[in-house]
Amino acid sequence: MRLKILWPGKTKSKQIKDLQDLYIQKISHLSKFRLIETRASKGIDEKNRHKILKIESEGLEKYFNRDYIICLSNNGKEIDSREMAQMLREKEMHFPYSVTFVAGGFLGLSRQVLDQAHFVLSLSRMTFSHELIRILLLEQIYRSLTIMKGKNYAK
Amino acid sequence: MRLKILWPGKTKSKQIKDLQDLYIQKISHLSKFRLIETRASKGIDEKNRHKILKIESEGLEKYFNRDYIICLSNNGKEIDSREMAQMLREKEMHFPYSVTFVAGGFLGLSRQVLDQAHFVLSLSRMTFSHELIRILLLEQIYRSLTIMKGKNYAK
Repeated sequence: MRLKILWPGKTKSKQIKDLQDLYIQKISHLSKFRLIETRASKGIDEKNRHKILKIESEGLEKYFNRDYIICLSNNGKEIDSREMAQMLREKEMHFPYSVTFVAGGFLGLSRQVLDQAHFVLSLSRMTFSHELIRILLLEQIYRSLTIMKGKNYAK
Repeated sequence: MRLKILWPGKTKSKQIKDLQDLYIQKISHLSKFRLIETRASKGIDEKNRHKILKIESEGLEKYFNRDYIICLSNNGKEIDSREMAQMLREKEMHFPYSVTFVAGGFLGLSRQVLDQAHFVLSLSRMTFSHELIRILLLEQIYRSLTIMKGKNYAK
């Protein structure tokens, strides 16, 4: 299985970036994996939501190809870690293209992007900063891979 | 309001510890706050679950006093960030002692500790490592405080 993650722009918080790199390293030992930090909207006033989301959406969609698209959203479906591992295992067996996780910027994902998702996933009922969500996503992907490989992952 | 967090032992992952320190710093600007890393069970084989949990429970309970105890557990109740802010606001107005969050070690919390909770909170349906859960908890506390103070917190 090839795994891909897309999100707009680089992670700015140094501490979050360091933790991100650690999980990426762990994931890379277990799966073909690629993180693509797509085009971020720079220098546009936050009031101009529509324009920011449009730029980011176009940046993300470029990489969708024929992938199985899993978008993160607060309004998505909550599943537990075993269910997520099961979903990935099923794709590994039957789906020939990449499984691609898509996380939004600080405004989240546009309706247009969400409409293209095969699955909309919520990691928590709580709201986390969009940079911290990246860590939660990476940890769950890593955890899923360890479950799939039958490893014992630290609790 | 005085906030307290209890968990057994220090955070070992350097990257998680750095992020933890960052959130603690942010929280300390907004509230009276104390993190107490209670006694951890060292050198006991993981098979001896009961013994580990007993040592950790005793270490945690020492600090319960007359506090409002919120324990973290996978089997707890999920609430959203606004509901959490509301719960803390209500305590700030009507409860004279500390609000104390309690997170477990890698085996979670014992039945005995959970039974003393006034509220059992689940941060996600998914399972996260017990060290990463500390970050999620700190971020939610920080977010709650910013909501309570009517600040705009970065999404």
